Amino acid sequence: MKIEIRKAKKEDMLAVYNLIKALAVFEKEPDAVEIEVSDLERDGFGKEAKFLCFVAEVNNKIEGMALVYMRYSTWKGPVLHLEDLVVNQQMRGKQLGTKLLDQVVVYGNQLGVKRVSWDVIDWNEDAITFYEKKGANVMRDWDLVQLDEKGIKEYLSKL
Amino acid sequence: MKIEIRKAKKEDMLAVYNLIKALAVFEKEPDAVEIEVSDLERDGFGKEAKFLCFVAEVNNKIEGMALVYMRYSTWKGPVLHLEDLVVNQQMRGKQLGTKLLDQVVVYGNQLGVKRVSWDVIDWNEDAITFYEKKGANVMRDWDLVQLDEKGIKEYLSKL
Repeated sequence: MKIEIRKAKKEDMLAVYNLIKALAVFEKEPDAVEIEVSDLERDGFGKEAKFLCFVAEVNNKIEGMALVYMRYSTWKGPVLHLEDLVVNQQMRGKQLGTKLLDQVVVYGNQLGVKRVSWDVIDWNEDAITFYEKKGANVMRDWDLVQLDEKGIKEYLSKL
Repeated sequence: MKIEIRKAKKEDMLAVYNLIKALAVFEKEPDAVEIEVSDLERDGFGKEAKFLCFVAEVNNKIEGMALVYMRYSTWKGPVLHLEDLVVNQQMRGKQLGTKLLDQVVVYGNQLGVKRVSWDVIDWNEDAITFYEKKGANVMRDWDLVQLDEKGIKEYLSKL
């Protein structure tokens, strides 16, 4: 089995989109995915790319991906954030996720960031154990807050 | 009392830095702030600015700030993220925080994002109540994960 981790190309975005979609179906939120392949193709490439994507290929087929972008900490400066790390169901347990995370940390180090960050859902104990073993700090006392499209409109209507 | 919310200028970064530092002292982590005023001046302005900052002025003195940047959701596309919202202790309860958050949501709407996001510490019930009243979804089942500078080096040493 030949595993290769590499930067995604524009023509990989359909496979990346399918991984995003599969994860949303798995999380029982298939309709939450509002972006399309063309959005990924436009937003991930060129001089003003909004993200960078790595893919994991097994025998030349894309079976996993990690999508990152820069954030800014008022304490540490530029931070590399891992937004999504997805591996196809049938390819779990073959170290694809580990290799993708390795690549993300290597990349963060190349950029000279003082932090790599990501989020994890709290019932995913396997993932949390894995991350802590890797030296990451899982901060259970912070919550994510989201004001969605409908929330934005309602918020503005009350100003 | 005259309150004005406006975009920060480069010469405001000392006041912004002092707000960042005051918050870190309040959170009992004064040494966690590794950036300096010159970093904020460099990173927040020009064509490749890494963040945008709004300040709240009371009688022409900066008493609060909100610092934002773009993230990328694989479900929603570009997202506006509020990294920090700080108001000087002695200016609490005067709607500065509300006005800064209003400005952030207005700005997100101008950009056409489908989400404005931020994080909250789970014991800050007043903030959580306020955010939920504003229509935001506080996701208590997600944890933040951070691999810090030391963690990055140790991670790489094991590859």
